[in-house]
Amino acid sequence: MTGRSVGDVSPQSFHFDEPLPLRSGASLPAYDLMVETYGQLNAERSNAVLVCHALNASHHVAGTLAGQAKSEGWWDNLIGPGKPLDTDKFFVIGVNNLGSCFGSTGPMHVNPATGRAWGADFPVITVQDWVDSQARLVERFGILKLAAVLGGSLGGMQALDWALRYPERVSHCIAVATAPNLSAQNIAFNEVARRAIVTDPDFHGGHFYAHGVVPKRGLRVARMIGHITYLSDDVMAEKFGRELKGGALGYSTQDIEFQIESYLRYQGDKFSDYFDANTYLLITRALDYFDPASEHGGDLTRAFATARAKFLIVSFTTDWRFSPDRSREIVKALLDNRLDVSYAEIDAPHGHDAFLLDDPRYHGVLGAYFERIATSLERPAGLQLKGVAI
Amino acid sequence: MTGRSVGDVSPQSFHFDEPLPLRSGASLPAYDLMVETYGQLNAERSNAVLVCHALNASHHVAGTLAGQAKSEGWWDNLIGPGKPLDTDKFFVIGVNNLGSCFGSTGPMHVNPATGRAWGADFPVITVQDWVDSQARLVERFGILKLAAVLGGSLGGMQALDWALRYPERVSHCIAVATAPNLSAQNIAFNEVARRAIVTDPDFHGGHFYAHGVVPKRGLRVARMIGHITYLSDDVMAEKFGRELKGGALGYSTQDIEFQIESYLRYQGDKFSDYFDANTYLLITRALDYFDPASEHGGDLTRAFATARAKFLIVSFTTDWRFSPDRSREIVKALLDNRLDVSYAEIDAPHGHDAFLLDDPRYHGVLGAYFERIATSLERPAGLQLKGVAI
Repeated sequence: MTGRSVGDVSPQSFHFDEPLPLRSGASLPAYDLMVETYGQLNAERSNAVLVCHALNASHHVAGTLAGQAKSEGWWDNLIGPGKPLDTDKFFVIGVNNLGSCFGSTGPMHVNPATGRAWGADFPVITVQDWVDSQARLVERFGILKLAAVLGGSLGGMQALDWALRYPERVSHCIAVATAPNLSAQNIAFNEVARRAIVTDPDFHGGHFYAHGVVPKRGLRVARMIGHITYLSDDVMAEKFGRELKGGALGYSTQDIEFQIESYLRYQGDKFSDYFDANTYLLITRALDYFDPASEHGGDLTRAFATARAKFLIVSFTTDWRFSPDRSREIVKALLDNRLDVSYAEIDAPHGHDAFLLDDPRYHGVLGAYFERIATSLERPAGLQLKGVAI
Repeated sequence: MTGRSVGDVSPQSFHFDEPLPLRSGASLPAYDLMVETYGQLNAERSNAVLVCHALNASHHVAGTLAGQAKSEGWWDNLIGPGKPLDTDKFFVIGVNNLGSCFGSTGPMHVNPATGRAWGADFPVITVQDWVDSQARLVERFGILKLAAVLGGSLGGMQALDWALRYPERVSHCIAVATAPNLSAQNIAFNEVARRAIVTDPDFHGGHFYAHGVVPKRGLRVARMIGHITYLSDDVMAEKFGRELKGGALGYSTQDIEFQIESYLRYQGDKFSDYFDANTYLLITRALDYFDPASEHGGDLTRAFATARAKFLIVSFTTDWRFSPDRSREIVKALLDNRLDVSYAEIDAPHGHDAFLLDDPRYHGVLGAYFERIATSLERPAGLQLKGVAI
């Protein structure tokens, strides 16, 4: 991919004094959102793209952090000058979600009601709650309508929720490698990961901060499970196969024998060093709960009846976490509502993780779509392009 | 399915004094095998069928235990008078594998070298080691040649190993829902389960017996992971879907919200009450290590060059643990060797677990195949049926 980095970036924290009412019935008092932006907001404030993150990502979507090696944002391959989401044309907003552990108000922050860390008492957050908090952030920028909301996986769910609950405030919804809800199997994997965390003796009912420990054992297992579901069977076979770590079998049940074991343990260790256990519980629950059809008798078509945006839906053939079938359910519901939908099913070997990689066909689709949006921004209203076939 | 139960059964323990040399280079001193048999061995000793078990099963394959409710053997739907494996015709041997926790010598037994429980020092056991121990058991019965070796999943691997390493002692090999080796993804799931057990503080490096505790947290997580891989996505969707345990969402990260969570926790709890943690490690490692092609430059066809048995290979369309593709690899290697192979791919919704269920098409295939074997037993040698198409 051509294009340059946005260079060194700095996060900003935005404070909100007005309490945020939550789906659970609870309410979050004053809160902060950690944000990064790239590119320039134009005079009409019409070129803003909000990027929503998935499980373990953050507001740091693109660029680097000054003086830190390997500090590229999680979607740096996509976003920058001359990249598919071109920051010479768009003003891109990355926001860390509430309940996360990268700066926005979350479980390790102080609960004003007790003066101690929220821990497991942090209110349960839903995709809708995140979107409501993001809507306030967008207002803070003086933006009446986003050129696009973009997200992959859980981020895609947020993009969909924007389109159906803030229809007048989103021109384009781009939802990648996502699903209209979790399947029983998806929930099952989340639940095993949560049980690993919650039953770790170092979890202390979610109040481990006070004990000066971290439930690393549970976090490691949770991350290992996650990684299996992010990769396709094929790519695992290709990357690791049955390759041994050493030259020969060691005949041990506890030592590493196979490369795949080494990889998973490494990923688990790394994750347990930086990720918060309560955040993991909250975010997997937000995934479980997302189900816009549930408020419409299970009818996804009715759920999207309010939507007015144009849509780009992208899936990957080897994604078995959120398979193309799940994206097609979304596409069908959108078409039933006679909405403008482009759908791309990318033949990529990398499984769910493909949405983070720079497959040229995938980035080609996103680049062409953003180009279409950019062109429409330059034209007077009422003279927009219709349904680019991809 | 018609047919009757074999009724109440009693296990027998067989003691072996001769040390068993193991693949690891270690050797198991004197050991015991726990065994059940059903039906009568005929005068020619030609009607014996050995049943090999998978992960958490045992020698208790069929029948009931006197006075115990719900004590049916794990393959009771298949084995009994008038059942697909008809005990009016066959003498069926169920054996608990070494290293297991149901009576055969295993990690909770005393290591004669130390006078304490083996624990994690129990030698690592491979499929080949099990088959070698089973061969000695079969000799003990005075059986020169088994009419069949039958197994599903890990049991199927044992059946295949019998066919390729004891070619003169097996007439038929019936391998159901199995694979010629584990994929990287299969190993990955095993590894996560093992890490959950090994990192449970109650594991005590595998010597938890001396501490009077059981690493239940790890066993629960291990079993939950296993269960996800045993069921198909479809059957999970059908059985549980997104159904809530209560009437409405409770907005909790730790309480049960969905029925699938309740099911998995129940399965995990039940398993942790009866299964041994060291056995879990040993058996998953035996799965990881099984790879007959590895000794032949990765060529499965060459691995089966020694085989002389007739084969029935069965797979299930929705089994994503050991998919039909993996069975077809076996079938191809057998056909390359011009062996007599029947292959049935059963269109069943239940995933890997299907091999334990009584799907009529599946049991029909097994019943027809055993009928073929029974008929051949009644005929003079040299007048056997050839290649029944199924």
